[in-house]
Amino acid sequence: MPSNSFGSLFRITTFGESHGPAIGVVIDGCPAGLAITADKINAELSLRQPGKTPYTSPRAEKDQAEILSGVFEGKTTGAPIALLIENHDADSSKYEPIKNLLRPGHANYTYLQKYGTFDYRGGGRASARETAVRVAAGAIAKELLKHYGIQTCAFVSEIGGIASSLPNLKSLPTLRKKTYANPVFCPDTKAAKKMMEAISAAKDEGDSLGGILQGVACGLPPGLGDPVYQKLEANLAYAMLSLPATKGFEIGSGFAAAQMKGSEHNDSFEVTGKGEVRSATNFAGGTLGGISTGAPLLFRVAFKPTSSIMKPQKTVSTKGKKATFRLPPGSRHDPCVAIRAVPIVEAMLAIVLADALLMNRLSRL
Amino acid sequence: MPSNSFGSLFRITTFGESHGPAIGVVIDGCPAGLAITADKINAELSLRQPGKTPYTSPRAEKDQAEILSGVFEGKTTGAPIALLIENHDADSSKYEPIKNLLRPGHANYTYLQKYGTFDYRGGGRASARETAVRVAAGAIAKELLKHYGIQTCAFVSEIGGIASSLPNLKSLPTLRKKTYANPVFCPDTKAAKKMMEAISAAKDEGDSLGGILQGVACGLPPGLGDPVYQKLEANLAYAMLSLPATKGFEIGSGFAAAQMKGSEHNDSFEVTGKGEVRSATNFAGGTLGGISTGAPLLFRVAFKPTSSIMKPQKTVSTKGKKATFRLPPGSRHDPCVAIRAVPIVEAMLAIVLADALLMNRLSRL
Amino acid sequence: MPSNSFGSLFRITTFGESHGPAIGVVIDGCPAGLAITADKINAELSLRQPGKTPYTSPRAEKDQAEILSGVFEGKTTGAPIALLIENHDADSSKYEPIKNLLRPGHANYTYLQKYGTFDYRGGGRASARETAVRVAAGAIAKELLKHYGIQTCAFVSEIGGIASSLPNLKSLPTLRKKTYANPVFCPDTKAAKKMMEAISAAKDEGDSLGGILQGVACGLPPGLGDPVYQKLEANLAYAMLSLPATKGFEIGSGFAAAQMKGSEHNDSFEVTGKGEVRSATNFAGGTLGGISTGAPLLFRVAFKPTSSIMKPQKTVSTKGKKATFRLPPGSRHDPCVAIRAVPIVEAMLAIVLADALLMNRLSRL
Amino acid sequence: MPSNSFGSLFRITTFGESHGPAIGVVIDGCPAGLAITADKINAELSLRQPGKTPYTSPRAEKDQAEILSGVFEGKTTGAPIALLIENHDADSSKYEPIKNLLRPGHANYTYLQKYGTFDYRGGGRASARETAVRVAAGAIAKELLKHYGIQTCAFVSEIGGIASSLPNLKSLPTLRKKTYANPVFCPDTKAAKKMMEAISAAKDEGDSLGGILQGVACGLPPGLGDPVYQKLEANLAYAMLSLPATKGFEIGSGFAAAQMKGSEHNDSFEVTGKGEVRSATNFAGGTLGGISTGAPLLFRVAFKPTSSIMKPQKTVSTKGKKATFRLPPGSRHDPCVAIRAVPIVEAMLAIVLADALLMNRLSRL
Repeated sequence: MPSNSFGSLFRITTFGESHGPAIGVVIDGCPAGLAITADKINAELSLRQPGKTPYTSPRAEKDQAEILSGVFEGKTTGAPIALLIENHDADSSKYEPIKNLLRPGHANYTYLQKYGTFDYRGGGRASARETAVRVAAGAIAKELLKHYGIQTCAFVSEIGGIASSLPNLKSLPTLRKKTYANPVFCPDTKAAKKMMEAISAAKDEGDSLGGILQGVACGLPPGLGDPVYQKLEANLAYAMLSLPATKGFEIGSGFAAAQMKGSEHNDSFEVTGKGEVRSATNFAGGTLGGISTGAPLLFRVAFKPTSSIMKPQKTVSTKGKKATFRLPPGSRHDPCVAIRAVPIVEAMLAIVLADALLMNRLSRL
Repeated sequence: MPSNSFGSLFRITTFGESHGPAIGVVIDGCPAGLAITADKINAELSLRQPGKTPYTSPRAEKDQAEILSGVFEGKTTGAPIALLIENHDADSSKYEPIKNLLRPGHANYTYLQKYGTFDYRGGGRASARETAVRVAAGAIAKELLKHYGIQTCAFVSEIGGIASSLPNLKSLPTLRKKTYANPVFCPDTKAAKKMMEAISAAKDEGDSLGGILQGVACGLPPGLGDPVYQKLEANLAYAMLSLPATKGFEIGSGFAAAQMKGSEHNDSFEVTGKGEVRSATNFAGGTLGGISTGAPLLFRVAFKPTSSIMKPQKTVSTKGKKATFRLPPGSRHDPCVAIRAVPIVEAMLAIVLADALLMNRLSRL
Repeated sequence: MPSNSFGSLFRITTFGESHGPAIGVVIDGCPAGLAITADKINAELSLRQPGKTPYTSPRAEKDQAEILSGVFEGKTTGAPIALLIENHDADSSKYEPIKNLLRPGHANYTYLQKYGTFDYRGGGRASARETAVRVAAGAIAKELLKHYGIQTCAFVSEIGGIASSLPNLKSLPTLRKKTYANPVFCPDTKAAKKMMEAISAAKDEGDSLGGILQGVACGLPPGLGDPVYQKLEANLAYAMLSLPATKGFEIGSGFAAAQMKGSEHNDSFEVTGKGEVRSATNFAGGTLGGISTGAPLLFRVAFKPTSSIMKPQKTVSTKGKKATFRLPPGSRHDPCVAIRAVPIVEAMLAIVLADALLMNRLSRL
Repeated sequence: MPSNSFGSLFRITTFGESHGPAIGVVIDGCPAGLAITADKINAELSLRQPGKTPYTSPRAEKDQAEILSGVFEGKTTGAPIALLIENHDADSSKYEPIKNLLRPGHANYTYLQKYGTFDYRGGGRASARETAVRVAAGAIAKELLKHYGIQTCAFVSEIGGIASSLPNLKSLPTLRKKTYANPVFCPDTKAAKKMMEAISAAKDEGDSLGGILQGVACGLPPGLGDPVYQKLEANLAYAMLSLPATKGFEIGSGFAAAQMKGSEHNDSFEVTGKGEVRSATNFAGGTLGGISTGAPLLFRVAFKPTSSIMKPQKTVSTKGKKATFRLPPGSRHDPCVAIRAVPIVEAMLAIVLADALLMNRLSRL
């Protein structure tokens, strides 16, 4: 199946290169009757926007999505929703001098091997620019979730080895506000300060840092996710590893589970005063057998340090000759891609949940 | 899309419950001309088989797959290949006394919430019994890979906090032989011995252990995996998190990448004496931009400790009353599910690669 | 996408060759809670069964489907439903002498070209034997439809140029009973008699006849079918042309529409005494814009005369030599495949509608 | 699966309403290396363009497709190709007075039932406007086919009961030129003249005519199409019935097969002087068992008379009151939709074949 679609029932299909005229997304399967405006979408896009602080790329994309279809009189009609974002601040000339060098940590080598060609301008289709339309599509998924009382959030949990303390998950809207109020999207302001220092230091050396994000969703009804191959965590892992620069995914206890015993890890069921079933702990991270329990969904995603660095690197030319790779002075990139990935991770989480929500309508007579 | 299929072009569709008459798989998309025998499939199945050592469940499944279709005169015909495995050693009576209790760490609560019903006999569809047919399908995927010079292996990397040293990856067939020669499927015999002791101790306490598996593939041509949503690592993560009891996935450097700098993490390109491009290191784990580089594919999967334990656990009945969950004496389960997951992880790896191999035929004119 | 699945949300995946050990189907996506028994399925299979009258093949398949999974305590569980039918009366020896000849009107030439191999025994995967499992899956789809008040029927409308009069569509169960009571599955007993004579005459000459079937569904809610590419009639056409020996499909007015004027063809809307909207006529055949109107769904399917005939035919060997193709004496085939196609057309209709019914749950918030 | 995609491996996803800002298509799966220009696409679009003769709608869409992605330095890169066509000549005001009436032969009733809302402006998503992007996508599919020596053509075979004689199929480029040189896209100039008179007469009465198109493809290698559910004719039937106003599809002998005998209908195989296998006749229409034989692919599609007519029609309002439907004076519509459907049918044919061509790469080791 072609590679540029994601999701089964709430399905996005994206297109566009970093330095082409525009990027876009078609959302197919959004139910009719959902209130959508370009403003809501653009508010999400602004969270992903670089160029606002020293901790992100200076590329000045003032991303504005245009709704081309699928919305009539302010509401979705059941027809596919197409969103278009024009590319403005694209400067391809800088890529000319390096277009014949294999770029360490980048995809030009593998694209060349696979397709025999590579649109080198700004990384072409391999650029993280593509994630802007994921955020735009995610804005619509979030509206759908909100309609059903589901809330989502993502935040920076670790950068350059500096870990955030676990924030309070009681109110996701509050946590979200706190997260985005901070330049490094980390709700623990003390840790955030140290992260900023570390980023500045790495940047000064022409280097970059990796990080870990945490994603959370609350208000999920039990039943989201399908057994076997469409387990909720399988779809989430798939979504997260489809993001550029990701190296790992874990749900609930994650890799730490490997060092636990069953008697510790099993979340006991208990019954509340109101007669509701819940689990005493949440090592599972919100699913059992791939299906949501109703407990908060908790997962983490590892990001590698940005591949684009100012330090010279050993490489090879497309002709197979030894060479040194040097980014042209003034090149624009993020010193730590994990930061701007926060709204992207949240968008993918929302899309996965929207899909699961629709799928769950089909489970019973 | 219904949940019981996996893969796009090399696609498996599985069916069957733990205590139904049989489980099975339909493999659609396997090219014509591949030599297949039931013996090859059964050899793989025997690796997953329990009941041979004290470190796995005593359930005695002598799994034999029958080829129902798609193979004629010893070769695949292009028609769908159906494999059937009968369930023999199924004893549903033991599940009767506990059928009205929510089972900690298990899926009966979520299935009941989703479907309003649950086939409690042996865990029904939620049972790891389903993975037997993945192994059977994987045996065919491996034959396809072998035809194109691709080798796969998986092994235990950590159990109960005891880590294996990194084995030699030069010859995967040798590593594979070494792995399966050992009762805990760990090629480091010293570490394996400690793991066995730890498992025995946990078992004696009526408890269970978690673990981490490592997967490897060698001989991949550059070009496998598609950009954006069908990245090779995204499909792998999806495959691995679709396995019961998995909590995490990482490729290459994985979560450790979060603490690295770009200048450390970027694998430099170099050119060999024969003029071949390769990377000096392999933090990437074998892909760039979601597409294989030709370097070994390296990933890890975290497994939680087995949920089935002999210790009593607090729970709630399906009627919402407090209760204590006790497995009936003589219940059969694995003290550490990670061990028997080794051939399963390898099978899913093979299926993901077979799919990517076919997809890659479509990339150029 | 592999070729052996049909349907999006109510999805069947079939396998098996004419002379292999068994044929089968996996039904994925059937909602939980539907009452299913093997008896219901076998009752449908008996309608397709040959060997009962001189108008069908003497091959004596006493098809019995075994339910391997997905049903627990008499009801569907949401897990995939696997149905298996063993092949009993398969005699491959007769195909030996003709295995190296291209068979006029058959698929061995094209399979050889495509796959480089052909399972010649009884036509292998190309055999109409595969349709037995469509009937089995259709039996489950029909139960789902029945639950929602939807009725289906198919019948012979024309054989060898002899046309049936249009039957009364008021009560589909009555029409169905009348249809299957008749050896040529035509509810017009006068026309049926002539058809039987024509078939006997063709059979005596070692020849075969073509025919046309009509399909009907009543009780459809408005809204089934999706705009653009999943139009209800598009899915029906796809389903029908996927049946062996079909040459055409039409809905409502069909090809006759080409000779009508808009003022004749447009079905006027009117309002009943009860305030219900309906159309005065039904040239549309039950859909507008690809979506059901609530009026009866009416379509027709053309079948070519059976390709297997006793007359000698000019052909070429697989080595490219001129040859004469003669079916071995005692070969078993239907003199008119359209007859036994009646339950198959009805099954495919039911599967298309079940899929559309589930899809329609997703159209609104 | 959402409804706005078509094709498995060469997959189009379309979006846009008749009176929205733009319509578009994303083509995913086109192999890298194919030469594409906007000019080639626009040349195809101009064939669909109305407003040039009295036989088509006066709506003046000067459709120009913009390539937004997937093409670099004149060649496809393997990335998704997005094409955008702006809507210019959209006048929604005319639809205001009739927006609360059910429109006979149109989809507003069924959309309202399905979605609870309808974008009435110009028919919204239900408008044949959507087919413009199918033509644009078809232009790319045709380039792919051309690269592999496959040629396609479609033409008017019957309008208002006036049949064209069967044209010479030896040279499809010649036939195509002849077809498009004629205002009613019928290569038989004598029949075309009568058709024009019939259309003018119907138009004068405020009425419309139906018609039949024929599609042809030559140069197909044997092997295109998959057995069982992806039969080439099944995919074609699906494609054709997904077009607005279509009522029927037939391949080869089609409905006439119902009146033939097996001995007439079976195409004998013969061997040419060059040792090539071919069939003496082509009642099959170019496939056997759903797979191309190498003979010309021949099919026909029935179109109903245009639903939009100037005559008053009985109808019901959305509130359920009796009403008379009158199109506003000056309304723009085609007197016979079959004519402009010619390039659309050809485009869908090309897309189906491109998909089958890619799929066929997967059939053997």
